[in-house]
Amino acid sequence: MTYPEGAIAKLLESVAFDANGLVAAIAQRHGTGEVLMLAWMNRDAVRETLETGRVTYWSRSRQAMWRKGETSGHVQTLRSLRIDCDGDALLLGVDQIGAACHTNRPNCFFREVREDGLVTISEPIED
Amino acid sequence: MTYPEGAIAKLLESVAFDANGLVAAIAQRHGTGEVLMLAWMNRDAVRETLETGRVTYWSRSRQAMWRKGETSGHVQTLRSLRIDCDGDALLLGVDQIGAACHTNRPNCFFREVREDGLVTISEPIED
Repeated sequence: MTYPEGAIAKLLESVAFDANGLVAAIAQRHGTGEVLMLAWMNRDAVRETLETGRVTYWSRSRQAMWRKGETSGHVQTLRSLRIDCDGDALLLGVDQIGAACHTNRPNCFFREVREDGLVTISEPIED
Repeated sequence: MTYPEGAIAKLLESVAFDANGLVAAIAQRHGTGEVLMLAWMNRDAVRETLETGRVTYWSRSRQAMWRKGETSGHVQTLRSLRIDCDGDALLLGVDQIGAACHTNRPNCFFREVREDGLVTISEPIED
C-alpha cells in the first residue's frame, strides 16, 4: 500500500516522536499475526514507508535510514499501518520476503523463557 | 505461567536494558495473534511478571510500577515470554481480561491510516 500526502500528513500529526525523534514500530506478518520484529522510525522513515509501500526504519546503531531488505533482499511490503492510543507506537501489517531477522530466522523473537531457561524455538531458514 | 529463579536469571542476563533501564514489551493475545499494546519494563517489572504470572510494566509517565489491571481489573496473565535477537524487545503472550487499552478498546492500535486519513477501527467495549 502507498498513501497520498493528505493521509501521510494526518498520520504524522498524530505520532508522538520521542526525544530522539523516533517512534517504535512493530512489524506483524499480514494474515497470520506473527510478530516479526520491533524497530524504530524517524519522521522521514514513516514518510518514506507510506509513500513507497516499502518498509523503511531508522537504524539507531548505524544512525542511518534502513531500507529493510536493501542488502539482504528480505523486503517488507506495507499492507496496513496503525497507531496506538498515545501515538508512540506503530503497528505495521507487512508481507515479508524471506527472513525478517538478521539471523535468517523468520522472526526476531526466537528465544522463549521456559522452566529450564531460555530455549531457541526456531532455526534459520535455508535460502 | 510462573517461572523459577534460574529461568528468570537466565532471561535477565539476556535483556539489553536501555540507558533508562527499560526494555520494550509487546503484549500479544495468546491464541489469536492480536497485538494489544506496547509498553515498557524495568528489571523489577520483568522479574515480577515472571515470578507472579501477572504482567507488570514500568509506567514512564508515573515513574512507578504498573501492575496492569490493578485499578481497572483488566489484568494480563502471562502465557509465554520471548526475547528478540538483540535483547531489546520482549514479546509477551497473554490472556487479557476486558480491554487492554485505557480507552476501553480491546487493543491500543485502533487507528489505521487509510487513503482519506486516520480511521478509528474499533469501539470501546461495554463492560
